[in-house]
Amino acid sequence: MQATVIHGERDVRLEEVPDPVLSTGGDAIVRVVAACVCGSDLWRYRGVVPVREPQRIGHEFVGVVEEVGPQVRRIRVGDFVVAPFYDCDMTCANCVNGVSSSCLARGSWGATDPMGAFADGGQGQYVRVPHADGSLVATPGQPDAALVPHVLTLADVMGTGHHAALAAGVTAGSTVVVVGDGAVGQCAVLAASRLGARRIVIMSRHADRQSLAREFGATDVVEERGEEGVAIVKDLFDGIGPDAVLECVGTKESMDQATLAARPGGVVGYVGVPNGGAELPIRRLFSTNVGVRGGVAPVRNYVEELLPEVLDGRLRPGLVFDLELPLAEVAEAYAAMDERRAIKALLHP
Amino acid sequence: MQATVIHGERDVRLEEVPDPVLSTGGDAIVRVVAACVCGSDLWRYRGVVPVREPQRIGHEFVGVVEEVGPQVRRIRVGDFVVAPFYDCDMTCANCVNGVSSSCLARGSWGATDPMGAFADGGQGQYVRVPHADGSLVATPGQPDAALVPHVLTLADVMGTGHHAALAAGVTAGSTVVVVGDGAVGQCAVLAASRLGARRIVIMSRHADRQSLAREFGATDVVEERGEEGVAIVKDLFDGIGPDAVLECVGTKESMDQATLAARPGGVVGYVGVPNGGAELPIRRLFSTNVGVRGGVAPVRNYVEELLPEVLDGRLRPGLVFDLELPLAEVAEAYAAMDERRAIKALLHP
Repeated sequence: MQATVIHGERDVRLEEVPDPVLSTGGDAIVRVVAACVCGSDLWRYRGVVPVREPQRIGHEFVGVVEEVGPQVRRIRVGDFVVAPFYDCDMTCANCVNGVSSSCLARGSWGATDPMGAFADGGQGQYVRVPHADGSLVATPGQPDAALVPHVLTLADVMGTGHHAALAAGVTAGSTVVVVGDGAVGQCAVLAASRLGARRIVIMSRHADRQSLAREFGATDVVEERGEEGVAIVKDLFDGIGPDAVLECVGTKESMDQATLAARPGGVVGYVGVPNGGAELPIRRLFSTNVGVRGGVAPVRNYVEELLPEVLDGRLRPGLVFDLELPLAEVAEAYAAMDERRAIKALLHP
Repeated sequence: MQATVIHGERDVRLEEVPDPVLSTGGDAIVRVVAACVCGSDLWRYRGVVPVREPQRIGHEFVGVVEEVGPQVRRIRVGDFVVAPFYDCDMTCANCVNGVSSSCLARGSWGATDPMGAFADGGQGQYVRVPHADGSLVATPGQPDAALVPHVLTLADVMGTGHHAALAAGVTAGSTVVVVGDGAVGQCAVLAASRLGARRIVIMSRHADRQSLAREFGATDVVEERGEEGVAIVKDLFDGIGPDAVLECVGTKESMDQATLAARPGGVVGYVGVPNGGAELPIRRLFSTNVGVRGGVAPVRNYVEELLPEVLDGRLRPGLVFDLELPLAEVAEAYAAMDERRAIKALLHP
């Protein structure tokens, strides 16, 4: 089959690789219908995370089940399925607690799973899914092609935005600021809106991204950053700031923006993968009672809640895809996101 | 009148000072019936926080209202009142949000208030309270002498323990670990028990403090610290740790203990005033989805909820006082707490 392999900085290739085979009993082979490129894939692409040897890549995909192992009970051949950006069993204590991203049997796409067999990367024609009954959620019937991008976001960005909002305690009537206007930030706006936030500020300097955020429910746009941005946000909310800030970037600057903007007693829900050496300033957080909660989003736990609204068209998170390409042009998908020509690129195998 | 003045390291004296006088219209003069020494008072006593000039000290007191200013509406002469460890108006946006410790007009005891007049320290015969209608809560009638120590804890330690538990999201059925066996840690155990936690571990190496924690509702004691303590706590809760950890110390070691012990997706509620240069390790928190929430406890916001249970004897947080002295012996009260001969000392003016 063909699958994407990253060889080094700005060197992504579609290559012929071995077809996956069932091997652990509870696994399944999924034919990928749509996959996409994640902001975190760009770390290896940009050389921020070194690539020591060629690696399979991609962790967001939807597709159709082609084969299942003898221990698979819930998932059936022919199901259209969405997988989270990690493999999980949904039976361990952490999965049951709602934190499947800390599954005790967790595996990663494009890597050897804890049982010793390879799980393919998502940017390819087929993927072996180690825990089919845990990781995969089947849609009722086959979704229309137009719905596929929306379903695909449940693999990562929509669930991640939802996690930021839940971690920050967003509920009906909340006031919310979203730091980050990429795909996850946009989904955080949508999630906050869905949860009933009464006012949602997107911090963004790009007209197209401001526009998408408004479509997703943002009520205000703040273009300023740093101290000026914080001061403007405080002013918008009684001079004290919003109840919740959703941090969807991961830099020291964005986290400072978030913790400084939140009102006393407010919460920062963060899903931006922390990079750089910044730690959290505990004395400042203590003096203001600003809480910080978030992390690797347990998106698998959110699929059942979000999927019906995606399928009936109430939630349209797939609008974050502003580029669709055949899998053969995966290198261009990476380049477009790297050069910020696209928010998020969808790939058709 | 007589009031406590700290002159420097291990130099606390009861001295003659000017009687307080009403000055800002909304203020009151309270005759102190009972006061106490806080762990944070020991910072100046131990020289951790330098004392550049003699300062009035003490921020926990209950007493009887002797005089009120012309703008005071709710509090009356003769009321028995409890004050929080700070002065607040209970009308600003932060107070209304439940975060009176960030009151926009907040003042401190033993310091000049934001209106420019002096608010006395709590360890004295009388205190001028700047925002009488905000800061003070009157009991219905005069409480029996036996109840006074319990009411006094609402000025700080009981409300602070309650804040740790709320910040960590403790609710019916929660599993909880409390780091710190001082007065606040003990009150955190009591607060978690009151909120319905099903299992509460106190980390303590002192038999008398273990015993008090058990009286307050602790179900388990762990004497080990560091990595060993974390491993034992994880084992007690399915190998993954408790839902909530209440951090009531404030050192890097205690916070590490807390963030390492919590289960994935769990929350650390922290009220130990951070000291030392330790910041929070965001990458580790991100990878485990452990949240951190807490800070300066808005104890004023909790008085109405806790006071009835204290008055009817259901809650007995005053058991944290294991030393009672006349105000004249305030120096001995500090020495006893400094030398860990007492958990917490109560003073009678």
